[in-house]
Amino acid sequence: MKCRRCGEKAVINMRQHKLALCKEHYLDWLPEQVERAIQKYHMFTRDERILVAVSGGKDSLSLWDILDRLEYKADGLYIGLGIDGGVSYSAESQHLAEKFAADHDLRLHVVDLASQYGETIPALAARTHRGRGKPCSVCGLSKRHIMNRVAHEGEYAVLVTGHNLDDEVAVLFGNTLTWSGSYLVRQAPVLPADRPGLARKAKPLCRIYEREMAAYALLRGIEYIYDECPFAVGSTSIYYKEILNKLEGDRPGAKLSFYLSFLQAKENGLFSPSADQQAVDLHACLTCGQPTTAPGQCAFCRMFSK
Amino acid sequence: MKCRRCGEKAVINMRQHKLALCKEHYLDWLPEQVERAIQKYHMFTRDERILVAVSGGKDSLSLWDILDRLEYKADGLYIGLGIDGGVSYSAESQHLAEKFAADHDLRLHVVDLASQYGETIPALAARTHRGRGKPCSVCGLSKRHIMNRVAHEGEYAVLVTGHNLDDEVAVLFGNTLTWSGSYLVRQAPVLPADRPGLARKAKPLCRIYEREMAAYALLRGIEYIYDECPFAVGSTSIYYKEILNKLEGDRPGAKLSFYLSFLQAKENGLFSPSADQQAVDLHACLTCGQPTTAPGQCAFCRMFSK
Repeated sequence: MKCRRCGEKAVINMRQHKLALCKEHYLDWLPEQVERAIQKYHMFTRDERILVAVSGGKDSLSLWDILDRLEYKADGLYIGLGIDGGVSYSAESQHLAEKFAADHDLRLHVVDLASQYGETIPALAARTHRGRGKPCSVCGLSKRHIMNRVAHEGEYAVLVTGHNLDDEVAVLFGNTLTWSGSYLVRQAPVLPADRPGLARKAKPLCRIYEREMAAYALLRGIEYIYDECPFAVGSTSIYYKEILNKLEGDRPGAKLSFYLSFLQAKENGLFSPSADQQAVDLHACLTCGQPTTAPGQCAFCRMFSK
Repeated sequence: MKCRRCGEKAVINMRQHKLALCKEHYLDWLPEQVERAIQKYHMFTRDERILVAVSGGKDSLSLWDILDRLEYKADGLYIGLGIDGGVSYSAESQHLAEKFAADHDLRLHVVDLASQYGETIPALAARTHRGRGKPCSVCGLSKRHIMNRVAHEGEYAVLVTGHNLDDEVAVLFGNTLTWSGSYLVRQAPVLPADRPGLARKAKPLCRIYEREMAAYALLRGIEYIYDECPFAVGSTSIYYKEILNKLEGDRPGAKLSFYLSFLQAKENGLFSPSADQQAVDLHACLTCGQPTTAPGQCAFCRMFSK
């Protein structure tokens, strides 16, 4: 297999794109694809200050690397969740995020849940009994709250996450199996800051396959945490990814086509505007001021005031 | 495993319903479920004349049997497609449909494509080069046209087909993967006769699993054609059914929940009315008068006037 651009030996063959590339051209190609998505969906500009949520995994660190190479002004945000799981998950991922920032001379905000809010994610989940034995819902809620707060306080124009195509498609698949209208309506490459206190959110990797991100991290020599979060084992989203991997294996391009045709259908007006219940019901949390659908306090503040 | 109703030995265990039943109570239960769907979706009444499209397979013959047991006034329609496939597919299925009608003293219309229109489905497909080597699109088109014509000419109130839950879910899955707006908007247990010349259509088995239909046919001793249509081998819908069977195997009830939540979301107004392009573009075919989206002649008449 030869590189489409230079004819040298290819290091990756992407059946879904009918494209094989050598290391050098792959490391050019991927940021080009990310740049295209940033432009197409009007995510942000080179004048804006960007906050990248960094977990220490391949996607977010590679995204930060790509934004840096593309000369965007991107700071990082690492949230210490206090998850050990026998693999020092949080400690190790924080170390890798900090090392990346130092090596690239980039600024990293660190918010430590235990020291700043008094509890780790596992402790919070155990105390509040949310999420049926799994801390994932508490974790998602906390991360969304803190990311939004730091973006707002730091006056960042946009909050950026490393969700790749596989992540987006798994979410879309789940929301489609249950036909969750308001989630379907709100799933997008970019969400505008359409409420006071709500940061614009963007996902520049939404059209990049997970496998492509792994190859990028590897070829760029980015040190990232290989372990999945120990609590993710057996999760619904991993199960959906398996189903979708089967589909993709049989029909290369199936994931991308599912996602892009969804975006296209939405743009063509498939969904009623009234299906977005959340848009109707949002108001400011009495404690933190962030927008919430819950009456009075938002779910995050309520969790800590119990 | 014991029958939930009488405690005798169960012949079927339906994990998706958490229900096991003996032969006698299963043969009561299934028609009750069909009756419920007929009522819930306002498909038809006992005063109306019903035309059941009968293929000779387990679903349509069982449906006819159920409607007869429920004392609906249902005649049958068999369309001879002229498919052999090494298993005398059409000849055998016609024989079984005619035998069922005779045994139950029911009226069966037979339309033979070759003698009435001059060509079998395989010949038509070969001549018109539609559907990339497979006659399935020509076949679907022809059946829809003829079913609608016979329903109209025979002054039937409603045309009924034996699509089961697995069929509906495979179609829904396919239309969702491509986010085909107008198909999503029009997929329903009952479609009203909202244009001149268009029969009302209903699918009373839309909430019944394929496996449940097979068990019904077996336990009722209905003789049906076991072979799938020889052209269906390798079809996309069979592939989707495999994927959905995996999902159902891991999460019993997944198919039913996918389908019902889709119907619920539609009822809740998820889709824009404007997404139904077909409703906008329908007009009468210049030759046969049936509604069509094609300009001038409908696709069926165009096929035969070439």
